[in-house]
Amino acid sequence: MKLYNWQFAPNCRRVRMFVLEKKLDLPAIEEVIGSGLRLKPEYFETWPHAMVPMLETDEGQQIGEAMAICRYFEERFPEPNLMGRTAVEKGTIEMWERRAYDECLIGTAEVFRNSHPDFVDRGLPGTTAKVPQIPALIERGKGRVARYYQKIEAQLAEQEWVAGSRFSVADITTLCAMDFAIAVGMPIPPECPSTARWHDQVNARPTAKLSV
Amino acid sequence: MKLYNWQFAPNCRRVRMFVLEKKLDLPAIEEVIGSGLRLKPEYFETWPHAMVPMLETDEGQQIGEAMAICRYFEERFPEPNLMGRTAVEKGTIEMWERRAYDECLIGTAEVFRNSHPDFVDRGLPGTTAKVPQIPALIERGKGRVARYYQKIEAQLAEQEWVAGSRFSVADITTLCAMDFAIAVGMPIPPECPSTARWHDQVNARPTAKLSV
Repeated sequence: MKLYNWQFAPNCRRVRMFVLEKKLDLPAIEEVIGSGLRLKPEYFETWPHAMVPMLETDEGQQIGEAMAICRYFEERFPEPNLMGRTAVEKGTIEMWERRAYDECLIGTAEVFRNSHPDFVDRGLPGTTAKVPQIPALIERGKGRVARYYQKIEAQLAEQEWVAGSRFSVADITTLCAMDFAIAVGMPIPPECPSTARWHDQVNARPTAKLSV
Repeated sequence: MKLYNWQFAPNCRRVRMFVLEKKLDLPAIEEVIGSGLRLKPEYFETWPHAMVPMLETDEGQQIGEAMAICRYFEERFPEPNLMGRTAVEKGTIEMWERRAYDECLIGTAEVFRNSHPDFVDRGLPGTTAKVPQIPALIERGKGRVARYYQKIEAQLAEQEWVAGSRFSVADITTLCAMDFAIAVGMPIPPECPSTARWHDQVNARPTAKLSV
């Protein structure tokens, strides 16, 4: 197996941490980012979808999208379970996983891509078309992340882990998204002590360090 | 069970069509959209996340996010299978489902929310905070949908259904996203005959009509 990877990208870290939580070795890693934080041209030929991560199985199947790759691993290696066992648990984990992605990760990506000098005319991933940066998305993204912090604080004040009483893929996506937000200048606000408690707790897992 | 619903919203249609494909009756439907295409104030109390759809189970659990609700139904009512059986199939279906959501549905939502007069200062869902419309997102969204049409055309020229040789939830999300794009003025381009063939084929399913 091979994982086409950009080491800094939170979507790639989601997969690496998931695999490590399964107590598996990481697949062979191929870095596909070259100079100027651009995908290497040959990657567009391997994978016209032109996004990371992408997993190539030993049988040659290609699967993109972080959660789709995690789903593949969950099915092949069911234990430890990270995506839920019962219907309610599966639904609840997926709900919180999607929120971390849509609100925190995408909100941060809006700030990052629309402000970073290496992303001029690359406002969206997955295309060589010119997509201008939109400065108004920086403010909008910041607001989105700030609201997410409030939301996850309310949840973590009641629950030990993001989706309830046990660690799941929802914690993985939340950690990767939140560490991205922190790196982009949006730290956990002081009025979110439960979030800080959870962040320490999840960071104490060996996989949190090993996946960076 | 009760489904908190906005009949026009593509995310709600995804759930309704999924349930109908399972050959189940729809849950009780509660419309939560009032005047000016705004959520009714009492819904914010029922569900502070303030987005649709949301499923309330007979046991009182609340699950938001369309795919999380579908996952709940898939687990409770496994047949007909709509999310894949093998690891590769599950991964492939989820990959195409996410693409339809991220690229076609969100791209269209960017066009819709940033141009519709009822959405002034409501550029993002799920909050009462003032989120200004960003006119530049209209063009960006149109480009995103145009590129998605190219991508899905290449896939449907090779495959009968979105994720391969059989109907899946990836077709449901793609149909709901594409019909939203069409409603917002982005029809299937003439250079996408395989997409048009697929659209006719999926629209011929009774659930396509019954879910509108």
